[in-house]
Amino acid sequence: MRAAVARDDRLELAEVPEPVPGSGHVLVRTLANGICGSDLHALTDLRHFAELTERVGGMLSLEPGQDTVFGHEFCAEIVDFGPDTQRSLRVGTRVCSVPVVFGDKGVEAIGYSARFPGGLAEYMVLQEALLVPVAEGLETERATLTEPLAVGEHAVGLADLEPDDVCLVVGCGPVGLAVIAALKARGHGPVLAADFSATRRDLAERFGADEVIDPAQHSPHDRWTSFGVARNPTDRAAAEMLGGPVRNAVIFEAVGVPGMLQALIDEAPARSRIVVVGVCMQTDHIEPFIAVAKELDLRFAFGYSPAEFALTLDRLGDGTLKVDGLVTDVVPLESAGHAFMTLRSPEGHGKILVTP
Amino acid sequence: MRAAVARDDRLELAEVPEPVPGSGHVLVRTLANGICGSDLHALTDLRHFAELTERVGGMLSLEPGQDTVFGHEFCAEIVDFGPDTQRSLRVGTRVCSVPVVFGDKGVEAIGYSARFPGGLAEYMVLQEALLVPVAEGLETERATLTEPLAVGEHAVGLADLEPDDVCLVVGCGPVGLAVIAALKARGHGPVLAADFSATRRDLAERFGADEVIDPAQHSPHDRWTSFGVARNPTDRAAAEMLGGPVRNAVIFEAVGVPGMLQALIDEAPARSRIVVVGVCMQTDHIEPFIAVAKELDLRFAFGYSPAEFALTLDRLGDGTLKVDGLVTDVVPLESAGHAFMTLRSPEGHGKILVTP
Repeated sequence: MRAAVARDDRLELAEVPEPVPGSGHVLVRTLANGICGSDLHALTDLRHFAELTERVGGMLSLEPGQDTVFGHEFCAEIVDFGPDTQRSLRVGTRVCSVPVVFGDKGVEAIGYSARFPGGLAEYMVLQEALLVPVAEGLETERATLTEPLAVGEHAVGLADLEPDDVCLVVGCGPVGLAVIAALKARGHGPVLAADFSATRRDLAERFGADEVIDPAQHSPHDRWTSFGVARNPTDRAAAEMLGGPVRNAVIFEAVGVPGMLQALIDEAPARSRIVVVGVCMQTDHIEPFIAVAKELDLRFAFGYSPAEFALTLDRLGDGTLKVDGLVTDVVPLESAGHAFMTLRSPEGHGKILVTP
Repeated sequence: MRAAVARDDRLELAEVPEPVPGSGHVLVRTLANGICGSDLHALTDLRHFAELTERVGGMLSLEPGQDTVFGHEFCAEIVDFGPDTQRSLRVGTRVCSVPVVFGDKGVEAIGYSARFPGGLAEYMVLQEALLVPVAEGLETERATLTEPLAVGEHAVGLADLEPDDVCLVVGCGPVGLAVIAALKARGHGPVLAADFSATRRDLAERFGADEVIDPAQHSPHDRWTSFGVARNPTDRAAAEMLGGPVRNAVIFEAVGVPGMLQALIDEAPARSRIVVVGVCMQTDHIEPFIAVAKELDLRFAFGYSPAEFALTLDRLGDGTLKVDGLVTDVVPLESAGHAFMTLRSPEGHGKILVTP
């Protein structure tokens, strides 16, 4: 089958063996697949990416040197069933799935595995038990967004929001937008959003952010006090002693470049919860003393549960999740390599989908 | 009055003006004062310490160049009352207090202020409204431990413990021991404790740690699986999918040296909550990718509330808090400087008290 294969730091169109569904597996035809920031990281330095994931304990099963077909944000249709399957969904049904599969070597991550090609190929093998059917009226393009939007749902869940919390989303790429969508889907406000890119600020506004800030013009942190959040520990302590209403800041870090964490540690109000959804691949510097004195809470978020994934697909179906404009381009498989190059300067883009 | 004054990077015995109680203040005679790790940090580089606290927003009111009298862990007795006081406690009553006072320039931290000398002096000025009287039967030496033990109570509160959580306290100096005491006071277990110092491991055992580990012999992280905590994200996810009981790791970082955070990020089980109580004054390195992939939660803890402080004094009084052996020396004011020097290699020590 045709696939975009990661070779050195580029994607090449190549013929690869069609995957064979094993026990409990289903063979599907990929309808669309979104390009994720993690794919860009992985392509830039697959060996470093593999080493880091290896250190965490074998979460991914990358094998540098062997062909890898990326793609873990997909919508597909059922083509065939492997042995030991229930077959409760019919051939032709459109499905999404959490991108993991149980193979001979245990749990593997679809799209980051030497054995299980991802959505940048004509066919994939998925786990039948994890399939979620796509509702009749939901366009394939939207269903493909389930995976990245589930990341937002999960991050918002980790934040343990109180109704009064004031949220700031730093970075309005696909991850930041997913957070905004999840916040607004549960009716939360106020939600501030900051990004240097005008395209992304527009998207944040369409996604329902209550206030959109260009950090080149002014710091989003100048806005806290006007929403009733005390910035420094002394003011916070004074507000608490007076028994007044004390509002918390919840900041979603969706940029993932070195320096961002310390910038937030420096600027965040006392007692902020900082949910780190941006994936920074480099070693970073922080000044713990400042985080201690402000009693910050850094919650690192990753992935989502199968329940959060299914809920997200539901909410895309019933229109609760507003995602208009997120997809800024749809390209054929032979243009996947070019799309990856484009996304190395992602400011003008939301999500790019590939249709193999 | 006589005081130990911070000059350059040493403590000097000097005569300083006796503080005058202002509106709402009480003049007290210091009975005993504990030496805190933060005092050691501050003495080593007062300017850096002042700059860092300044950046956080004026929490402390250090003025390098002016005399500073450290000491914020104290027990004292009432000598006289300033104007506008209620005088509900009598002269001679032993008291503890959260070490803050409301002066002309707002809230100031006793012991880190150019205007309000701390407990390394014969007299202090305290805020009448914040005084907590010491119960008749409680020795002064124990009451003096209220402040450092309240730090443990606060850190444990921040951890949001579930009954099933498995706790590890890394570093068994006074801060780590305070955490162990607070955990055991609420009947929590298991509590593992690790320290390179045999003296401190002995103390951890006396404080009730269920298992005490010498990291030079083996890593405390080798113990997680035997307590039913899944170490890596894949094992954790598998345990969750099987619906089995999933135990969380809660790690208290009570060392505060560069490199400790990343060591914990590397070794902590997936989904650990890491409560950072150790105060690292230097810039530190972390690898966010590892923290993200494991979904770690880094909660930086600082201080305590007045309620936590009062609760701690209560529990010292009724014996719920076990602290036998924490005080390893009691010295007169003229030996305070020597005690600070001793504590630069603190391995053989718990808490040293000074009796001005």
